[in-house]
Amino acid sequence: MVYRDLFYPQHVLVFGSAKPGKLAAVIGQRLLDGGLKQVSFVNPKGQAIAGAQGYVAVSDIPEPAQLAIIASPAPTVAANLEACGQAGIKAAAIITSGFSEAGNKEGEAEILAVAQKYGLRFVGPNCAGLINTHSNLIATLETQPPAGDIAIISQSGAVGGSLMAMAKEQGLGISKFISFGNGLDLNMLEFLEWMQTDDETKVVAIYLESVPSGREFMQTLARLAKIKPVVVVKAGRSSAGQRAALSHTGSMAGVDVVCDAALKQCGAIRVNTLEDMFDVCRGFSALPPMQGRRLLVVTNSGGPGVMATDQAELSQMAMAEPSEAMKKELYSFLPAYASTRNPIDLTVEGTGKEYEDATCAALADYDGALDLYIGTPYLEAVPIAQGIINAAQRSGKPVTAVLSVGNDIEAARKLLYEAGIPCYVSGERAVKVLAKLADYYDWRTHGVYDPSVPEPSAEQLPDRTLLEPEAKDLLAKAGVPNVPYAFVHSAAEAASAGAKMGWPVVMKIVSPQILHKSDVGGVILHIDSEQAAAAAFEKLAAIGAGKDFRGAIISPMRKGEHEVIIGLVRDPSFGPVVVFGLGGIYTEVLKDVVFRVAPVSLDEAKLMIHSIKTHKLLEGARGSKPIDDAALAQAIVAVSELPFRYPQVKELDLNPVFAGSTGAEAVDARVVIG
Amino acid sequence: MVYRDLFYPQHVLVFGSAKPGKLAAVIGQRLLDGGLKQVSFVNPKGQAIAGAQGYVAVSDIPEPAQLAIIASPAPTVAANLEACGQAGIKAAAIITSGFSEAGNKEGEAEILAVAQKYGLRFVGPNCAGLINTHSNLIATLETQPPAGDIAIISQSGAVGGSLMAMAKEQGLGISKFISFGNGLDLNMLEFLEWMQTDDETKVVAIYLESVPSGREFMQTLARLAKIKPVVVVKAGRSSAGQRAALSHTGSMAGVDVVCDAALKQCGAIRVNTLEDMFDVCRGFSALPPMQGRRLLVVTNSGGPGVMATDQAELSQMAMAEPSEAMKKELYSFLPAYASTRNPIDLTVEGTGKEYEDATCAALADYDGALDLYIGTPYLEAVPIAQGIINAAQRSGKPVTAVLSVGNDIEAARKLLYEAGIPCYVSGERAVKVLAKLADYYDWRTHGVYDPSVPEPSAEQLPDRTLLEPEAKDLLAKAGVPNVPYAFVHSAAEAASAGAKMGWPVVMKIVSPQILHKSDVGGVILHIDSEQAAAAAFEKLAAIGAGKDFRGAIISPMRKGEHEVIIGLVRDPSFGPVVVFGLGGIYTEVLKDVVFRVAPVSLDEAKLMIHSIKTHKLLEGARGSKPIDDAALAQAIVAVSELPFRYPQVKELDLNPVFAGSTGAEAVDARVVIG
Repeated sequence: MVYRDLFYPQHVLVFGSAKPGKLAAVIGQRLLDGGLKQVSFVNPKGQAIAGAQGYVAVSDIPEPAQLAIIASPAPTVAANLEACGQAGIKAAAIITSGFSEAGNKEGEAEILAVAQKYGLRFVGPNCAGLINTHSNLIATLETQPPAGDIAIISQSGAVGGSLMAMAKEQGLGISKFISFGNGLDLNMLEFLEWMQTDDETKVVAIYLESVPSGREFMQTLARLAKIKPVVVVKAGRSSAGQRAALSHTGSMAGVDVVCDAALKQCGAIRVNTLEDMFDVCRGFSALPPMQGRRLLVVTNSGGPGVMATDQAELSQMAMAEPSEAMKKELYSFLPAYASTRNPIDLTVEGTGKEYEDATCAALADYDGALDLYIGTPYLEAVPIAQGIINAAQRSGKPVTAVLSVGNDIEAARKLLYEAGIPCYVSGERAVKVLAKLADYYDWRTHGVYDPSVPEPSAEQLPDRTLLEPEAKDLLAKAGVPNVPYAFVHSAAEAASAGAKMGWPVVMKIVSPQILHKSDVGGVILHIDSEQAAAAAFEKLAAIGAGKDFRGAIISPMRKGEHEVIIGLVRDPSFGPVVVFGLGGIYTEVLKDVVFRVAPVSLDEAKLMIHSIKTHKLLEGARGSKPIDDAALAQAIVAVSELPFRYPQVKELDLNPVFAGSTGAEAVDARVVIG
Repeated sequence: MVYRDLFYPQHVLVFGSAKPGKLAAVIGQRLLDGGLKQVSFVNPKGQAIAGAQGYVAVSDIPEPAQLAIIASPAPTVAANLEACGQAGIKAAAIITSGFSEAGNKEGEAEILAVAQKYGLRFVGPNCAGLINTHSNLIATLETQPPAGDIAIISQSGAVGGSLMAMAKEQGLGISKFISFGNGLDLNMLEFLEWMQTDDETKVVAIYLESVPSGREFMQTLARLAKIKPVVVVKAGRSSAGQRAALSHTGSMAGVDVVCDAALKQCGAIRVNTLEDMFDVCRGFSALPPMQGRRLLVVTNSGGPGVMATDQAELSQMAMAEPSEAMKKELYSFLPAYASTRNPIDLTVEGTGKEYEDATCAALADYDGALDLYIGTPYLEAVPIAQGIINAAQRSGKPVTAVLSVGNDIEAARKLLYEAGIPCYVSGERAVKVLAKLADYYDWRTHGVYDPSVPEPSAEQLPDRTLLEPEAKDLLAKAGVPNVPYAFVHSAAEAASAGAKMGWPVVMKIVSPQILHKSDVGGVILHIDSEQAAAAAFEKLAAIGAGKDFRGAIISPMRKGEHEVIIGLVRDPSFGPVVVFGLGGIYTEVLKDVVFRVAPVSLDEAKLMIHSIKTHKLLEGARGSKPIDDAALAQAIVAVSELPFRYPQVKELDLNPVFAGSTGAEAVDARVVIG
């Protein structure tokens, strides 16, 4: 309902001055220029621009209106919204700034209250407005883009403006544009929801600076991504200012890594620049699915082919050579001087027919193609373009083109665009786009995002960092594998527990006042007899004297084949996040850790294990046995579920977990409550 | 001389058909269109295009000519060259293809012989020709670019053509363009040499696919880079086809890493795409030196500022906040709603004067600035551009701009270009350019490339992989630190050598037939008595029975704080290359190794140590002591000099070298002769 009113209004009210150059006047003009028939101004003098009606009050307007664009001064916004509400208008875009972004939170509270009173929904305030190219709605100051099937949703008005200007410059067709500014009422969640059923939109592009409701965002995003590609630029990738303080394990990475993980889990296609966003949107808008990573390159010159191949390797595309049978087939119509390795190099003599036949034939064994054409002023590009178009149509697979140099290049590019073949400025850019296509369709086929979380347990945990025996009890209850242990309170108990466990054992001090046990000598290794155990206990008791000494925890000495870490941190937006990495130096020096918004499935946990840079170490490099993937993944799953069963757990740090060729066991555990 | 003839001819001969559409005819027309006054055609019918003279033979031409452009069929090239030689012409460009690139090596030998007979120098064959915009010389089929101060030298004609088309499209001013095709006579070396004294050229851009004479190339390149920035695209970064088989240590990286190291050592600015090449060339052409990495960003909108900041961190630029004093100064003229952190955000209200004053004032504490302006159709960009220009002129520091959105953006961009301010499509791209400026001027100030190499020793080495005792003797002579050792030939000798050395010791089998000692049980550790030593020797002797057993080598057991590797490989183009990395898994799994063309200075060796990803481990992470940088660097220097002193050494592998807080010692050595 509000969606129809926002994007398909028949009659739009513009609040604000109709004087030339004023915000409202410019937007009113845009609406008229865009082809909207009914535009009415509302301002104290009842003035309007040519082609629109002017009124002093909403109640004076005879015809019902569906959408209000409010560009009047901030102090008047609430009253104008009230008038809209009374007139039964259910949708508004508030362009006016001077609200929370300028410290005016009261002003926002006021307009939100008015809107809620009338069930009116609005975009903004402090936004750049709306566009729907399919309903002649150009309710913005920004550049009017060509019509098309890409929706753009921007958290930043300035970036939105740049995007509209770029869309016009590059001829990229836009379906809807939404700048939601402060996002006080309607925001990203609603827009993503609507995009699921928006038939005019094939690809959704979003610019984000922050994600306020991480889990809702993920659910909505994942639902949308299963239907349509969602291309995301998220700024604040690395800026120190964007980094929240995470605890120990998380502190080595800013929260951007969490958002990055969330986007991946939901199948969003993340790119880093607006240029990449446009390249990728153009690809998704025009091309059929890319079902695999086998990439074919057809070229008429070596250098650009080599550069495209370099990028293909960087983008994890498979640039395999054609099979011998395929080479034979290719040579049945290609001249002997052509190279039928991949890239297929037709040389400067390559004709449109050769592009067509080579691309088409080889695509039987590849998932997508890039056709590169470097002309000279004496070659003709149009027949080449026609060959590429024919190949795309005959094969039904994604084919992109790069055309460079020559007199009729522009005509050839136009031909390609009209036939729905994206044409990029370089092979490298085209390859990056095809790689994103392959990523996305792989996720759409195999990716699962399950937003459900385990039920909380009724059990209460102590209101402080858990003692190690408590932490280990908790792990056991949560199904996280753990080395055996005994909590002992005297030298005699220590000696008998050790003997029962089998020598050698390790003994650690237990005291709520001693968190860094090693630093105070509170960890004693290689204890190999009852006497040694008793002595060790006495030593720990001496260290703990006066420090709320609770006893000692004894475990068998284990020698892990691999030390890994599994941890939990809480992100302010996304909540519990599970972290996995190789322990020690790998984590601290190489920052080789991977994050996922919790909980994760067993498959996702396996993907985590496989996605660290040092994964080969776990596969059995240097003669060691490969680890038990399934057991380690199961431990990650159990940890990822723990904060939902025990919501009081704020952070958890299993460092190290010994991962061997059979099983995985947490050796040390730290659990912070809060 | 040949340089003047090639680039400043008064009279150019064009060999080939003058019929419309033919290669020679098109080039002749280009020459005339470019403004050259005297163009003569030479072909069997003596035909010419309008504006040129036609002759049947060179000897018929009354006026002396300086340059021949040969575009006649391949079989006629030698004869045409001969005629040029007889007429005293000393320079030619051979456009004609069908030589070594098509398997016709004899044809190439023939034309080279003719040219040498007459002292004639030529570009090509199979090249796209020459341009000198400063002498009206457009001797190519490719697009004519605007005149400027950037020289482009391309190994690929097709890439050269793309570059000329891009230059025209983007309005990038070119001084000279050289496509040298097969590079049979004149090639990259001569062109780089000439560019040193070419006053019309400020920046040199080269596209490379291979580097045939690596060391000469480096010397010439380094001399040029000390005077002018040299921007390089080297294709074949990652393609498997480009990888040569290097020995053990080198095999984890393709030869591109060697070329990459060589380019770095010589101060070249490597970029990966032609787009980046153009961005960077434009920056170097227009901007004063960037002497440091402190980057200021001034913007009128947050989002694009954040994205530029992200890129700045990725590009290792320092985005420090202004000092408190500077903030105070800024607020003396900026409104309170502006943010004076870095980015300085003037908000949408930012005026040209504010851009000027904020940029200019803050630049006192920064090394360069990026001014971002995101307009809307109702803001005016020209006054902003003027403010940015004023800031650049007043500060004398590098200032780049990004202007986006708005009606008068084109006029504003033009103003910036005329004032020599590069204007990029995004902040990210501008930041990358400034980072390359900072890299280059840092090298130009501190970088040293010394091409001298040590004198060879007269000593002969055995003509086979050295036995370990021989390898260790060689290391000692070459000044590479080494663990002490004894070469023993009986159980008794082993026992007494061990006792003398001090227990425990390690004993290894010595046999030219056993290269992988560990695999056959030929390494015995922890030998702690005379009896154990004797027994160990007997065990090795049994293993070596029938395998040319020469004895055993004994060394004290050492426990290294860090295991590193130092190696030597030979690159087919660059010769000896020294390799450094952390040993074991770091090398094999993380490929964390660094290469330099040998020999290296002590400073360069220290840079190598500091540039591995895991360098923090060597700095004393996790409680270990920092390594003795100087000793380890000295070992790298000694290894890097060894292949010059002993040219028979083909490969060398010190794996591991124990690097401690005092000193560094090679523990195992493998030296391959050949």
